[in-house]
Amino acid sequence: MTSATRQIDGVFRALSDPTRRGVLERLGRGPASTSELAEPYGMSLPAFSQHLEVLEDCGLVRSRKCGRVRTYRISPRPLKSAESWLVRQRAHWERRLDRLDGYLAELKETLP
Amino acid sequence: MTSATRQIDGVFRALSDPTRRGVLERLGRGPASTSELAEPYGMSLPAFSQHLEVLEDCGLVRSRKCGRVRTYRISPRPLKSAESWLVRQRAHWERRLDRLDGYLAELKETLP
Repeated sequence: MTSATRQIDGVFRALSDPTRRGVLERLGRGPASTSELAEPYGMSLPAFSQHLEVLEDCGLVRSRKCGRVRTYRISPRPLKSAESWLVRQRAHWERRLDRLDGYLAELKETLP
Repeated sequence: MTSATRQIDGVFRALSDPTRRGVLERLGRGPASTSELAEPYGMSLPAFSQHLEVLEDCGLVRSRKCGRVRTYRISPRPLKSAESWLVRQRAHWERRLDRLDGYLAELKETLP
């Protein structure tokens, strides 16, 4: 398995949780500290930190510690590779539907 | 949690496995039977069938049994909702980068 495959596995797995998607939505508006990110979720800090770890492990976020505060920011490149995969799939089946449309149109012309 | 949230959780989880992504890539080219789909993977049929089950449970594929052959086809709507989420996130952070660019340009003008 290539490292690109492993990365995309990790990205999709990270995206399969609403808390983690919520964190990414928040970080899309700008960097935030652990406590700012945790605030909307009624979750223990250790449980919440695990979500941040999953996001950081697959490269979707980066963090930096300054004094006692750790600040997170989004790292958009892995999101783009997930999006590219989806867009490629859509292109495939849309092309196939177009061919099917063409075939149906031809079939119609041959009808009496 | 809304059912839309649950659906998108399931879709991203289904996409986090290379075998399941491979099946979707294959079905993007047209419907296929279980054995046609299983062929490229050196996997027991029960193990492979579990992957198909995950894909069917979250609505990414549909199947129909005709005699002893079950045929699968892609069901693109859930892929679109996953793609929409990703596109929305990209729009957010691109807008933010634009604002940052604007701010840096302004800052440059104030320099001697």
